[in-house]
Amino acid sequence: MRGVVMHAPGDVRVEERGDPRILVPTDAIIRLSATCVCGSDLWPYRGIEAVDGPSPMGHEYVGIVEEVGGEVQHIAPGQFVVGSFWASDNTCAICQAGYQSSCIQRELMGPLGAQAEYLRVPLADGTLVATPDIPSDDLIPSLLAASDVLGTGWFGAEAAGAGPGKTVAVVGDGAVGLLAVLAAQQLGAERIIAMSRHTSRQKLAIEYGATDVVTERGDDGVARIKELTDGLGAHSVVEAVGTQESMMQAIRCTRPGGHVGYVGVLHEVELPGDELFFSHVHLHGGPAPVRHFLPELIDLIWNRQIDPGKVFDLTLPLEQAAEGYRAMDERRAIKALLHP
Amino acid sequence: MRGVVMHAPGDVRVEERGDPRILVPTDAIIRLSATCVCGSDLWPYRGIEAVDGPSPMGHEYVGIVEEVGGEVQHIAPGQFVVGSFWASDNTCAICQAGYQSSCIQRELMGPLGAQAEYLRVPLADGTLVATPDIPSDDLIPSLLAASDVLGTGWFGAEAAGAGPGKTVAVVGDGAVGLLAVLAAQQLGAERIIAMSRHTSRQKLAIEYGATDVVTERGDDGVARIKELTDGLGAHSVVEAVGTQESMMQAIRCTRPGGHVGYVGVLHEVELPGDELFFSHVHLHGGPAPVRHFLPELIDLIWNRQIDPGKVFDLTLPLEQAAEGYRAMDERRAIKALLHP
Repeated sequence: MRGVVMHAPGDVRVEERGDPRILVPTDAIIRLSATCVCGSDLWPYRGIEAVDGPSPMGHEYVGIVEEVGGEVQHIAPGQFVVGSFWASDNTCAICQAGYQSSCIQRELMGPLGAQAEYLRVPLADGTLVATPDIPSDDLIPSLLAASDVLGTGWFGAEAAGAGPGKTVAVVGDGAVGLLAVLAAQQLGAERIIAMSRHTSRQKLAIEYGATDVVTERGDDGVARIKELTDGLGAHSVVEAVGTQESMMQAIRCTRPGGHVGYVGVLHEVELPGDELFFSHVHLHGGPAPVRHFLPELIDLIWNRQIDPGKVFDLTLPLEQAAEGYRAMDERRAIKALLHP
Repeated sequence: MRGVVMHAPGDVRVEERGDPRILVPTDAIIRLSATCVCGSDLWPYRGIEAVDGPSPMGHEYVGIVEEVGGEVQHIAPGQFVVGSFWASDNTCAICQAGYQSSCIQRELMGPLGAQAEYLRVPLADGTLVATPDIPSDDLIPSLLAASDVLGTGWFGAEAAGAGPGKTVAVVGDGAVGLLAVLAAQQLGAERIIAMSRHTSRQKLAIEYGATDVVTERGDDGVARIKELTDGLGAHSVVEAVGTQESMMQAIRCTRPGGHVGYVGVLHEVELPGDELFFSHVHLHGGPAPVRHFLPELIDLIWNRQIDPGKVFDLTLPLEQAAEGYRAMDERRAIKALLHP
């Protein structure tokens, strides 16, 4: 089959990769209907994360089940399924508490390479959620968004305590940040402040429910959020970038007793204990347990109550994956969908 | 009046200090029935925090109201009152959300020096809580504990999500850690693991409700907690020390999705972002909003349902304050009560 392989920073190729096969009886093989490039794929692309030799890429996927292992009971060939970036058993104590991305049996999907025609999914019963029927084509981008960026934004908004009466600020205007805005709106937040300097992203944020846009960053951004919140800071702040600057901006935008939900993977970040202590904020985040939210998110998409697929502003055939990476790297695209 | 003054690390004296007076109409003056030495007073005593010239000491206090300013409405001379280490208005949005220690009008009590005969209390209506009547002498140590260490341990246990069905671990066996054990027990925790290497403190922890004692520290302590919790870690961990080692121990003892409540003042602590991210824990803490808990804690003490005053294992006249500091510094005493 054809699949994306990163050979070095900036060097992404679509080449022949061996077809995946059932390795253990809890596996399934799916034929991908769509996959995409993630903001986190840009870390190795930009050389910020090491590339250890040629690496299959991609961890976001929706598709049709082709084959299941002998122990798979709840997923069957022919179903349309959505999974996420961690395979999980969905039965251990950690999964049951809603943290499937820390499942005691978890397996990272990235190395399996979802930017391809076919994908092996471990722990298929726990990992995959089937849609009620085969979706119409127009629903596929939104279902694909549920596989990562929607679930991640949603987790960020929940971790930040977004809800009725709350003022929510979102740091980061990538797909995750934009979908955290959508999540905050769905969770009933009173006011949603998107922090963004890019016109097209501001526009989508407003479509998704942002009531205010703040273009300032760093200390100026913090000052502007305070100005908008009686000097106190937001109740809820979602951090969807993952740098030292953005994380401190998120903490400083939050009022004492408020919540920071952080979902940007923290790279070389050190949180100063004394500032954190006196900030009085709640901190929660990490790799989003997307599996926990999938049934609810699929339902909202299926009933056309939300349209997270709008974050895909570039659609390409899988063979042109390299252009998808380039467009996202240059911020010409928010997120690139790839059709195998 | 007589009061404690720290002149330099290790140099604590009881000397004549000017009598406090009403400075603004929201002040009250109280005559102290008891005061005490705090673990945090040991930071400057040990030279870890700077001593900027002679400094009045003490921020824990109970006593009788002597005089109130013209705008004080709810506190009256003759009442027995309990306050805490931050004066707060108890009416601003932050106070109303339960974070009085981040009140927009807050004033730190420490510089006013509660280790003395009399104390000026700013924002008296917001800061002070009166007991139902003048307490009998045997209740005074417990009411004094409510002024800081009980309220702080309680906040730590709540921030850690202690409650029915939960396994709670407590890092730190000072007065705050021991009272976090008591709080976890009152909050209904199923299992309470005290981390302590000192026999007398282990004994009090067990009296307060600890079901297990772990003597190991650092990585060994983490391994032991995991062993006791099916390899997962505790649901709830209270951090009551404030060092890099103890904070990392607390985070690593917590299962994914669990909660760390941290109340040890963080000194020179840096939290590594990547480890925090993948730990999946909730972090909350800071200076305890003791005022928020005071009505409930006074009620529990008044009805003799809890006996937090047992943490005072040394009682001295105020004039011997220096011996109280020494005994705590040398860990001969958990906490020293001073009688003016």
